Parts: sequence; C-alpha cells; structure tokens
Amino acid sequence: MHKSRTVWLALLASLACAIGEPASAQQPQKPNILFILADNIGYGDIGAYGGGELRGAPTPRIDQLAAEGLRLTQFLVEPGCTPSHAALMTDRYSIRSGLSLVAVEGTDISLPADEITMAEMLRDAGYATAIFGKWHLGAQPYSQPQNKGFDEFYGIPPGDTWDVFGIIRQGHQTKALDLPLDKGPQIVEAKRGEPLRAVKPYTEEVRRDIDWDLVDRGVDFMKRQKSASKPFFLYLPISRTHFPNLPSKRFEGASRIGQFGDSLMEGDAVVGKMLDSLRELGLKKDTIVAFASDNGPDGPGARTFGMDMQDIGSSGPYRGALGDVSEGSVRTAAIIRWPERIQPRSSYAMFSIMDFFPTLARLAGGKVPDDRPIDGVDQTDLLLGRNDAGRREDLLTFVGPDLVAARWKQFRAYFVDVAPGRSGWGGEHLMGGVGTSAAPMNGYPKVFNIESDPREEHNIGEMYNWVIGPLLKEVETYKASLTEHPNPPAANMTRF
Amino acid sequence: MHKSRTVWLALLASLACAIGEPASAQQPQKPNILFILADNIGYGDIGAYGGGELRGAPTPRIDQLAAEGLRLTQFLVEPGCTPSHAALMTDRYSIRSGLSLVAVEGTDISLPADEITMAEMLRDAGYATAIFGKWHLGAQPYSQPQNKGFDEFYGIPPGDTWDVFGIIRQGHQTKALDLPLDKGPQIVEAKRGEPLRAVKPYTEEVRRDIDWDLVDRGVDFMKRQKSASKPFFLYLPISRTHFPNLPSKRFEGASRIGQFGDSLMEGDAVVGKMLDSLRELGLKKDTIVAFASDNGPDGPGARTFGMDMQDIGSSGPYRGALGDVSEGSVRTAAIIRWPERIQPRSSYAMFSIMDFFPTLARLAGGKVPDDRPIDGVDQTDLLLGRNDAGRREDLLTFVGPDLVAARWKQFRAYFVDVAPGRSGWGGEHLMGGVGTSAAPMNGYPKVFNIESDPREEHNIGEMYNWVIGPLLKEVETYKASLTEHPNPPAANMTRF
Repeated sequence: MHKSRTVWLALLASLACAIGEPASAQQPQKPNILFILADNIGYGDIGAYGGGELRGAPTPRIDQLAAEGLRLTQFLVEPGCTPSHAALMTDRYSIRSGLSLVAVEGTDISLPADEITMAEMLRDAGYATAIFGKWHLGAQPYSQPQNKGFDEFYGIPPGDTWDVFGIIRQGHQTKALDLPLDKGPQIVEAKRGEPLRAVKPYTEEVRRDIDWDLVDRGVDFMKRQKSASKPFFLYLPISRTHFPNLPSKRFEGASRIGQFGDSLMEGDAVVGKMLDSLRELGLKKDTIVAFASDNGPDGPGARTFGMDMQDIGSSGPYRGALGDVSEGSVRTAAIIRWPERIQPRSSYAMFSIMDFFPTLARLAGGKVPDDRPIDGVDQTDLLLGRNDAGRREDLLTFVGPDLVAARWKQFRAYFVDVAPGRSGWGGEHLMGGVGTSAAPMNGYPKVFNIESDPREEHNIGEMYNWVIGPLLKEVETYKASLTEHPNPPAANMTRF
Repeated sequence: MHKSRTVWLALLASLACAIGEPASAQQPQKPNILFILADNIGYGDIGAYGGGELRGAPTPRIDQLAAEGLRLTQFLVEPGCTPSHAALMTDRYSIRSGLSLVAVEGTDISLPADEITMAEMLRDAGYATAIFGKWHLGAQPYSQPQNKGFDEFYGIPPGDTWDVFGIIRQGHQTKALDLPLDKGPQIVEAKRGEPLRAVKPYTEEVRRDIDWDLVDRGVDFMKRQKSASKPFFLYLPISRTHFPNLPSKRFEGASRIGQFGDSLMEGDAVVGKMLDSLRELGLKKDTIVAFASDNGPDGPGARTFGMDMQDIGSSGPYRGALGDVSEGSVRTAAIIRWPERIQPRSSYAMFSIMDFFPTLARLAGGKVPDDRPIDGVDQTDLLLGRNDAGRREDLLTFVGPDLVAARWKQFRAYFVDVAPGRSGWGGEHLMGGVGTSAAPMNGYPKVFNIESDPREEHNIGEMYNWVIGPLLKEVETYKASLTEHPNPPAANMTRF
C-alpha cells in the first residue's frame, strides 16, 4: 500500500514537472481542508439522519451539506470525546496513546510527545494549520496543539471539556497545565511553539457565544491563507451540542424542545456560516469540508455527570448513548463535501474516524507514519467513487485499558457485560473498575447483528457461532501489534 | 366545513356546465388513486426513513417514490392491522366500528353494515374500485369488501391475517365466513354483491408469491379502467412484511439479514412494478399514489404469536413495536405522490391514517358522511402546499374497548401502565384483560415529549403538568361524541 502510493505520488510529481511548473506553484492545487468536529451529536439528531425537524430542531444547513456531499451512514468513532479526538488526530486507536478515557482537568493523561498528529502530517505537506476550539488531549505542554502541528490555537484549555460549570463547581485545578488558572477557567491561545496565553475569563456568557468566536477566527484564518495562496487545514472542534447546552441569546427558544434543540440549531447555523464564508471567499470548489460528530449523544450515562434531561440527544435507531459502548454510542453523523470530486450520495461503507488521517494524507500529499501500528485505512477510493464498499470491515472498541467490543461487517461482539446502564465508561459497571476487573462474560461473547437488530436485543452468539472467528481476527491482529509496540501503562489511567 | 365544500363543488359543477362539456367528460379529470398499504413495515425499515441499505435490505423503488412525492415523517396509525385498516376505510377511530382489536379467523368482530367505506365514497363519486389483498375487517357477508364498495375483490379470506401457517397449525375455523374452508384456507374472490368464491388453496407457495398475484390483477384492473376512461381506486393491501416473511424464490437471499430483509426488498420490487406499470400505461401524471404501512414493525410483542427473530422490523428512533402502544407502534412510513400537484418534499405535519378519507374525498369529489362522528381531517392543503403544518394536532389510541393514550402536538400521554413488554395488545398486561381492568396509573397519566425524548424514557407529566389540559381536550371531545353515537358493545370483543 504505502509503496504503491509513494510511486503514484512520484509519478504525479514528475508529470507536474514535465509540464514546466515550478514546485511552489503546485501548492494551490492541494485542496484546503475545513474539518468541523461537532461534540456529542447523535446519529439521530441531524435532519439528514432522521432528526432535525423531527426532533423539533431543524438543521437545514447541515442537511444541505449532506445533499451536496458524501453522507456516511456507518461512521464509527470511539465511545467518548478524548478517545475520538485522539483517534482522529493520531490515526490510531486511542488506547495506543493512553487516551482511551476522557481527559478531565486534573488528570494525568496527555498525548505522548512521540505521537504524530494529523496537523503535523499536513503541515509537513505544506499546509497552514489552525485549531480553534476543544483539543481535549491533555494539558502537558508537549501535548498542546501549538506543539503538535498547529500554527495557531485558540480555545478552551487543552485538557478540558466544554463543561465550564462543572469546573467551577468542583474548583478548578491546574495540575499539569502551564498556566495559572487560580482566577477561574480562561480562554487561551498560542501560536506555534509559544506557551499558552490567557485571553479572557471563560464565563457563562463566553460559553454561550464560543462557537461564533471560533467562527470569526476561522474565517479570518481562511482569508489570510487565501491571501498567502497557502493551502490550509482548519480544524474546528466546536462546542455544540456538548452539555451544558447553553444557546446564545439569538438562539434561545429557537427550537421546540428547549436548550438542546436550541443548541443543535445554533450548531447548524455555525456550520452554515463557515460554508457561506467559504463560498464568499471563492474557496468552495477547492476545499474539502468534513463535518462529523465525535461520539454518540448525551444519554442516561452522561447524565450521571450532572446533565439534566434538556440535554438528551438521539442515537436514532441504535441502542445506547454516550456512556455506553453499544452502537448508539459509537455510530454518528459524518459528511464529506468536495465539489466536482466527491459525488453527492449516501454510503453505508464502514468508515472510522481514524480513516480521515490516511485519506486526507493521500489527497493532500502527506505521509502516514510507517514506524508504528496505524489503525486507519485510506478511504480515498470510496470518496472518489472508485469503490462503493470502502476498505474497512472491522473495528475495535476500547474503554480505558480494556477491549470491550469488536465489529466485523454487520456483527458486533461484546467481551464484557453490556447490560443496559452498566455498559460503558459512564455506566455503573465500568465506573466500578472494568480496568482491574474487566468482567468477561461466561466464556462467550455476546454477538448482535446491527443490521437486522439495531437495538441489540437478540444475542446470536450461540446461534451463529461461526461469526466469532472473523470477529476475533481483528482482535488477534491488534494483540500481535502490541508485542513490538506496547501501549502506555494502563495503571496510570484515571477513572472518570 | 361540509357546507362550504358542498357550495364549492356546486360552483365547480356549474362552471363545468358553463363551458359546455357533458358531465361524463369530466370524469377523466378525476385523479386515479393507487393505494398500496404495506403490512407491519416499521418507521425505520425503508431507506427513505433511515432503513433500507442500513438494515441490510435496500429499498430503491420506495426511496425513489419518496423523492418524487410527499414523505410524511409523522404519519400515525392505530396499533394493529385490523384497527388501522378499519380507520383507513371508515374515517373513524376503529373503536367506533368495534374493530379496535385484531380480527382473527373464528372471532365475531366484523365491520358493521352501516359503516361507510372509502370505497363506497369513491364509487359514489364515479370511481371503479378494487381491492386485491387483505381486507381484515371481519368475515360476515355484510362486511365483505364486495359488499362494502368494491367492484372487485381478490385475496385472502376477509377476516384473516396473512398468517396462513398459524391458521393451519390451529385448525382452520369457518365461523361466520360464508365459505366452506374445511379443506384448509383458500384464496377467494368476488365481484360486487356476489358471494365469495374459492380460487385456489392458500398454500405456502401461494403465500410466497401472493404479492405478484395481486400486482398482476392490479395492472389488469388499471388497464381495463384506462380503456373504459374511468377513474379508478385501486387498493392494494399487500403482504410484505407481515410474518411469516416468506420471500418468493427470486428474493430468497436477496438481503443481508435473512427472510425479513428479503421480504422487505420483495415488497419494494412489488411497489416498483406497480409504478412501472402506471408509467407504461401513461397514467403516472393523473394518478395519486399513496404508499403507507398499517402499523409499526413486528416486535417482541408480536413474537409471542410464534414469529422468530428473522421477522424483526425497526421502528427507527421510536420506542416499541407492534404489540405496544408507544410511538414505535403507531408511527410509520407514508408517501403520497401526485406529479405536478404535490411538490416533492418531506413534511413533519401530523397525519393520521384516517385523514386519507376526507382528503381523497376532496380531491376526488366524494362526500364525507355527515351523520356520524368523523375523526379524519381534510389534509388537502398540506398535500398541495398551501399549508405546512397540516390540520391535525391530536390523536387518540385505543386498544380493545380502552383509551390507552393521547397525543397533543409533541406530547404523548398514557392512561394505562406502559411498562416495556406489558404495554399493548400483545403485551402481558393487556392480554390479561385491559378490557375489564384498564389498570389506570396512580391517578396521573405518564407524559412523554416524543420530539425531545423519542425513546419515551422521561415522564414529564409532573414537571409540565400544564400539558395535561390540552391533552385531555381531544379525549373530552371524543367522549362527548359517544352520547349520541355510542360505540358498539365492547363486551363481545374477542381477546387476541
């Protein structure tokens, strides 16, 4: 794979030289990349996925994006914010970077210095890079985005969630973070290599307007790169619809279902504003826009952390929500638009959040690391319509140090008890310590056919036991990779 | 309402006379009506509703119909086959005709002679009428379709479900049916006013191919009406996806999920064949095509009647399935296409299966009865784009003699215990006799916000108790109507 791509790129490069253009003139041909990562939007929340108006909160702008792009209906993530963000940035299961639990302020977990991020890959490929929003991969200086490939960072502190109120309630801790926050949480920023600088207090009002703040900076960044004729990677991990869903004044009461719906509609408008700006800048055609959510919706599990029922999202037909490890927690929305290159359509192909890295590397002329296990697969052929089924047919799910589930094609197997309410990092069972006692079931995994049984009500493990073989193949491949590349010690993982 | 419509029609008639055309020449202007009623297809089964390919069983033809027509996303039915079919045919809650339980062979329940059906209404308006498929409104001769407005009937015995195997297992009973079936179940037919005639034994092979049999007769009927220049009402209550889902040979293994998926795909092809025939006959533009399901998918409740898990349908994001009374049991798919008159779009407007009668009456120049309570509302303005919200904001749900739930806008209240597995006609609780002991909850209904909480997990009855007022308004209106028009005696209702 890697070799053949290298050859192909070399051919392309020689072709470009053959027609007499200097290498620097090649750069504008690289597509810009605008990656909007929504927070805790469930499979069933957006109109194009059966939500929107049906949920009392229309999402016309994202629906339109779906109509113009590739709508993925089997987009799979990790069951939590930090794990999914880590998988997206590193091209690897989050457990390989020790980030398979949610990083909260005051914990030790932080992206290791030797991980290579998508931003580093794209910057090496000639891109201007920026992240405005939530990094959430740990607070250690070596982990911070301005030290991990981004030219510019603006947002909440790099180890934090959006939950400023939880932080205030608990008393803010500054462990690991190289910034005094004894006056309460701050919005921070940094240019490449700089230390973090506090910009303004992260108050409730700032929280309400934060996504518009990110949009302003995003638009300004795009303008500057356009003037400089430099391709850009703009990563916008926005706040919507992470609890607490506090809409800005303009969106209060916009939906029929309270603050969650208001926030969903505000997120839709945020996406719309970015798309409008792209068009106004004349960059629509030359920009790959990816919109995705990082995990399933806030559900009963997440509510154990103080959410109220105003924050309920929908996982559509699938079982469970954030806080579980079932399909509703790990399948969500993702849309990729690239005018004239990606034909508008829906695809059922399995696509992991990790697949963005190698796919964008191919399209941007970047390099996927070859000195470590890589779990993402290049889905360029799927995007460009050369392949309908995609290149992925399995995926593992981890919580903390434990492998809890595996997918192969339409089958999903669980290796720990998945009784409702005790099935994920928010559930009673795993909260109680799946790390030290993973509680395997009685010798036999539970297996569900997600297609015929989207609610995972019928364990077919015994009836179709031939399925176990292929399900375990990916597990064996993963385990084999640990011999040479062991995961970071699990013992230090902080329970949340 | 009725008066103003009468005046409007009179004006139209006089206008027609004024431009000198004989009355008979008006008839071709009436739109043909092709009504395909699917059986037990859930909200989440069809591609245009988030199923199809996602469920391992693509439904391209119905998806295309949805793209060309009005896709209703809040289409509400009654929680069972007989009740929904009765509501569609009579324009009234099924309880008003004593059909609020499922009619099974050997029971007494049968459509009363004084009910006026959609077929009678349309025949009086000048239509040729036919039903090919499942009537399911009782076996008494006075209830049979050829005596209730249909010029032609062909299908399974009028009081039966599609479950021929259940019938064979239990020993077929001929109580009430004017046809000796001592040699096992038969496919029957009759022209207007004739007694039923057995056509052929209703064997497993016939069951597998039955929908194609209905298609052949339907196409022949359409051809004959075209030759006669007569507008037609063709009602096709097809077998898919009622259990047992036995595909024809051609569709065995067509899907990835076994016989349910095969059957769903076969139903899609059946719809496609009817649409192709319409086009080939040059009738596409002049025909209103309605496609709908009669209730939610076969679920755990229905499985108590001998289904296996191969028959699982999906209710999409909603709670419950056939056998429950929750949203997943009463919300399903409905699409209405009328080229050039109905703009292709989706609508969240609440639309009851009863609303077809007055809407089609308006479009076909028929008359809605004015001597009895009518529960359907005319949704013509919604269809023709003059009104986005529709004319309905409440709906009641009955099981047997009992009012079990009420909808008002996005709120759904339950008046009996709705614990999972004991919440409908298939559930333990109601099976055990909700008729004689409706088990009201402790003085207070449970209320759910279907939009913000599609799984009905958060009872908001106490938190938002102002909702109870408008929820009970429809109940009071219904109860008031019973003084002058009492329902048939409930005591004779047969439990199923």
